[in-house]
Amino acid sequence: MNSSGGLSGKTLGWIGTGVMGFSMASHLLKAGYPLVVYTRTASKASSLLEQGARWVDTPAELASQSEIIFTMVGYPQDVEEVYFGKKGIFSSLKRNSILVDMTTTQPSLSIRIAESALNKGAHAVDAPVSGGDIGARNATLSIMAGGEKDIVDSLLPLFQLLGKNIVYQGGPGSGQHAKMCNQIVIAGTMIGVCESLLYAKKSGLNPETLLGAIRQGAAGCWTLENLAPRILKGDYTPGFYVEHFVKDMGIALEEAARMGIQLPGLEKVQQLYLRLQEMGHGKSGTQALILALESLSEEG
Amino acid sequence: MNSSGGLSGKTLGWIGTGVMGFSMASHLLKAGYPLVVYTRTASKASSLLEQGARWVDTPAELASQSEIIFTMVGYPQDVEEVYFGKKGIFSSLKRNSILVDMTTTQPSLSIRIAESALNKGAHAVDAPVSGGDIGARNATLSIMAGGEKDIVDSLLPLFQLLGKNIVYQGGPGSGQHAKMCNQIVIAGTMIGVCESLLYAKKSGLNPETLLGAIRQGAAGCWTLENLAPRILKGDYTPGFYVEHFVKDMGIALEEAARMGIQLPGLEKVQQLYLRLQEMGHGKSGTQALILALESLSEEG
Repeated sequence: MNSSGGLSGKTLGWIGTGVMGFSMASHLLKAGYPLVVYTRTASKASSLLEQGARWVDTPAELASQSEIIFTMVGYPQDVEEVYFGKKGIFSSLKRNSILVDMTTTQPSLSIRIAESALNKGAHAVDAPVSGGDIGARNATLSIMAGGEKDIVDSLLPLFQLLGKNIVYQGGPGSGQHAKMCNQIVIAGTMIGVCESLLYAKKSGLNPETLLGAIRQGAAGCWTLENLAPRILKGDYTPGFYVEHFVKDMGIALEEAARMGIQLPGLEKVQQLYLRLQEMGHGKSGTQALILALESLSEEG
Repeated sequence: MNSSGGLSGKTLGWIGTGVMGFSMASHLLKAGYPLVVYTRTASKASSLLEQGARWVDTPAELASQSEIIFTMVGYPQDVEEVYFGKKGIFSSLKRNSILVDMTTTQPSLSIRIAESALNKGAHAVDAPVSGGDIGARNATLSIMAGGEKDIVDSLLPLFQLLGKNIVYQGGPGSGQHAKMCNQIVIAGTMIGVCESLLYAKKSGLNPETLLGAIRQGAAGCWTLENLAPRILKGDYTPGFYVEHFVKDMGIALEEAARMGIQLPGLEKVQQLYLRLQEMGHGKSGTQALILALESLSEEG
């Protein structure tokens, strides 16, 4: 079954088998790599174990048995715990291991992981993704990678099992920065599309007819193409969770403040998403933003 | 030379020969229609006159000699003057004439023009466009039309000389509302792209590499594709003027207030563009928004 380059036969470790992590780990397993798995909620790994993955009880144990370790967890504090916790990866990391954090997290945390790895004679790469659960399932994720270039290059055979558009962005943390740039654009397209649809409805336009008129021009965007039709159907099922987007925007705003720049548009969008979260929509899809706008307008 | 449908031989009137109006009027003239022209700055019409258009001294005179009258002027107050002024169109409008205002203006003004037209036994259509000077030159404009459906249909042979995506939106003012929806989306994509590029530069990413990584995914949009590369070159030449965009956003916000909805994202973008205008960039292209963000950040 196996596989490209100098990675043949390497044992891989995978931590975090949520909706995305589960699909991604499956791809590696199906390609024939020996896979060791740890995740907080063990039941979420059971199907991987049936496919041949081996369970371990802690990140430390996983690190002692793997050569390349992937992490795909939820929040920066989860990353922190998994790497630096008492039974974390760094407590038993082997020399020459490669750590690949695919969680979207702080660039500064990625840098700290990279430094700690070097101190232990290992290497770390930050490689957050975009493309959501569908991209994870279909192995069409975009991967934005930061770290040592030759290490990132050596991982390409694995990344290519997970995604299509794999771009090296620079040193440690650069993958995270690139992901922030991605999210900042999305925040803009999302507020534009949601405000536009709210205006369309209130002004008595037929929103479907409107979409037909504007999607091919300068207003054209992925969000208009893919999420506007869902909004018009009142479909707020998550492609990407509101609460994860709130996390990402929070990181971007923290970093912006640290770099001495202001992102007033992103701040405004973040405020609206916090409102949406307070309205109980943390687990809705990001397109639910229109509900925050509607509630704001009702309030007057 | 002429031409489709029941419009053959009709005399057309054209008011407003700025960058876009000039190109649009040329297309009609080249298709063989007799064309009467008026514009505030006569010299801007000279090339049309050489091509066979006939000059008149006032909108009133133009109205008395034309069956279908197009207007493409700058601001709502110009539209007001051209239609309702002392020597305006309505002072000498013929029965059964058709008025086509292609200026982006207030929906309420379009409705008033339509009512006044009906009172005189004539008809009016609002048909603002998107696609800028390039779209006007290449006859690839998107046209968003409001008014009586059969009248809009009857104009299709002429609209097809000017644009490609011609969509009927509903009664009087609907074309303007659709244009507002278009501009609201663009305001969002523009702030997203500009804030993202500012973040990219400050964080030490290579912005070109970043674009390659994010353009094909959920951040993909016309603005990222077409304007981001110009921003990275420091090219702020206008595809669309800042001052016209400020006008459009002002109309959208006025209408939103009238309809009782809030558009906080658009408000924020409008504030930034007003700042940009104060910085002397009224005649720059809309992508110059990044300069307002930079100046805001420098201010701290």
